[in-house]
Amino acid sequence: MPRPDWIAADWGTSRLRVWAMAPDGTPLAGARSDDGMARLAPEAFEPALLGLVSPWLAGPATIPVVISGMAGARQGWREAPYRPVPCTPLGPEMLTFDGIDPRLAVAIVPGLSQARPADVMRGEETQIAGLLAAAPGFDGIACLPGTHTKWAQISADEVVGFQTCMTGELFALLSGQSVLRHSVGATGWNAAGFAEAVDDAIGSPQKIAARLFGLRAEALLSGLAPDVARARLSGLLIGLDLAASRPYWLGQEIVLIGEGRLAGHYAEALAAQGAAVREADATEITLAGLRAARALLARKGWP
Amino acid sequence: MPRPDWIAADWGTSRLRVWAMAPDGTPLAGARSDDGMARLAPEAFEPALLGLVSPWLAGPATIPVVISGMAGARQGWREAPYRPVPCTPLGPEMLTFDGIDPRLAVAIVPGLSQARPADVMRGEETQIAGLLAAAPGFDGIACLPGTHTKWAQISADEVVGFQTCMTGELFALLSGQSVLRHSVGATGWNAAGFAEAVDDAIGSPQKIAARLFGLRAEALLSGLAPDVARARLSGLLIGLDLAASRPYWLGQEIVLIGEGRLAGHYAEALAAQGAAVREADATEITLAGLRAARALLARKGWP
Repeated sequence: MPRPDWIAADWGTSRLRVWAMAPDGTPLAGARSDDGMARLAPEAFEPALLGLVSPWLAGPATIPVVISGMAGARQGWREAPYRPVPCTPLGPEMLTFDGIDPRLAVAIVPGLSQARPADVMRGEETQIAGLLAAAPGFDGIACLPGTHTKWAQISADEVVGFQTCMTGELFALLSGQSVLRHSVGATGWNAAGFAEAVDDAIGSPQKIAARLFGLRAEALLSGLAPDVARARLSGLLIGLDLAASRPYWLGQEIVLIGEGRLAGHYAEALAAQGAAVREADATEITLAGLRAARALLARKGWP
Repeated sequence: MPRPDWIAADWGTSRLRVWAMAPDGTPLAGARSDDGMARLAPEAFEPALLGLVSPWLAGPATIPVVISGMAGARQGWREAPYRPVPCTPLGPEMLTFDGIDPRLAVAIVPGLSQARPADVMRGEETQIAGLLAAAPGFDGIACLPGTHTKWAQISADEVVGFQTCMTGELFALLSGQSVLRHSVGATGWNAAGFAEAVDDAIGSPQKIAARLFGLRAEALLSGLAPDVARARLSGLLIGLDLAASRPYWLGQEIVLIGEGRLAGHYAEALAAQGAAVREADATEITLAGLRAARALLARKGWP
């Protein structure tokens, strides 16, 4: 493998992903670890990064590393203050600094903030930039399912507003740590149970507090199967998310940026509500966004 | 202290409480431990009970022990099958057996079940019997706040229907283990923040999924104080409970059976909605219910 031109990194709360990038923006190689922001003290970020990328650092030359995500959080490597919406997903306010290792020139992409209702994102702004790079002039909604699902309204190349629902985190807590863990399977699925639960939560969100314990009661009284309980819990929580996010998807063009099963479940739930959904690959969109950040930095003459 | 006539016990998921009872139903002494159902295998229940009550067992005579709560669960001491509503809170179907220690004659009060919507209770039926003993002919709603808050409609001495909301458990998970733990204080309170959040959740339950992360975002962006965040999280979840339980409290006479701060928060929230709430002491009501169970067993000639 030739020496990469630069390194792209997506630093999440629970994992770190890096790519060695060719001058034309093609990824030459990739690596990942569980060194997410949550387990690292500020001084541990550079060693965690070097642990993955040092095989790519032949010779003494400096290499640019462009990072999106939680490295810029207050508890991250260095804080990159939020940029307030409405604004373009990427702006000139990149946080740049040199590594202790002289071969590293680091740039961290700042997240976005919204004053009212209060909300924040870190990482998704880079994916939105990637979406705009792949679909110039896109006007509509980006839905980014995850631990904290983000809904962003995009118009005239700007993020106009956004909203976060703790859908993935609620599912993990309720299925893994609440009394529902006795009734909700760790795997398995039931499409009909999921669809009914989504409908139920969207149609009657005020009943959600009672519906949750109902899963436990049905398991005790009539042997509700663990895979059905799992699909119904997911349906109730995604339905509750959709109830809160209705202004973001009703009558809108939606691009779903996600991976794996969770994105598939959101796509099903939105399609059942009659919403027009297009799915985009999250890794490709992330790389497109990091390439856009790299290009913006290069125009500023960095590094 | 004279040798008690019988022993009353309330066996919860996380704690065990026992009382030595005089023939006239007065508690002579009480004791408690953390030997809740959740940490005990079936064979560990009798030793856990003896650990608390053996000082009261002078001589070889048999003593009746009347137990409400989770001892009768499938994962408890011995399973006492649910009694389906509508029914009186206590019935003749008590589970009785002798201890391995010949001094113990054990009776477990069965819980109640509801087929549609599926729901179950264990322990609250005894408190409802205590409420009816203290207020014969009561016609209205019992609200029993807790890890799993129960709402029960009572009429003509029967439990007509009931509903469970996982309000206390959701608060514990979100405040202690989710991303909100960074923003929600372990103590502290703000009455105005609580009241506004209750109103918000009752009026717009469909927005709850977004409101939760808003607490984190406000803490990051504008320094939302941890005590205010704590009160607002509690208000959102109690408000969501009240939204689901509206048919149980709207225009109804409500007795709140609870202890400490949580019961106070429910009382405030219900009063703000214009509901007429009377508070009853949970321990006194529990003892009244266990006395009613003891009297019912005695009429059957047990032990």
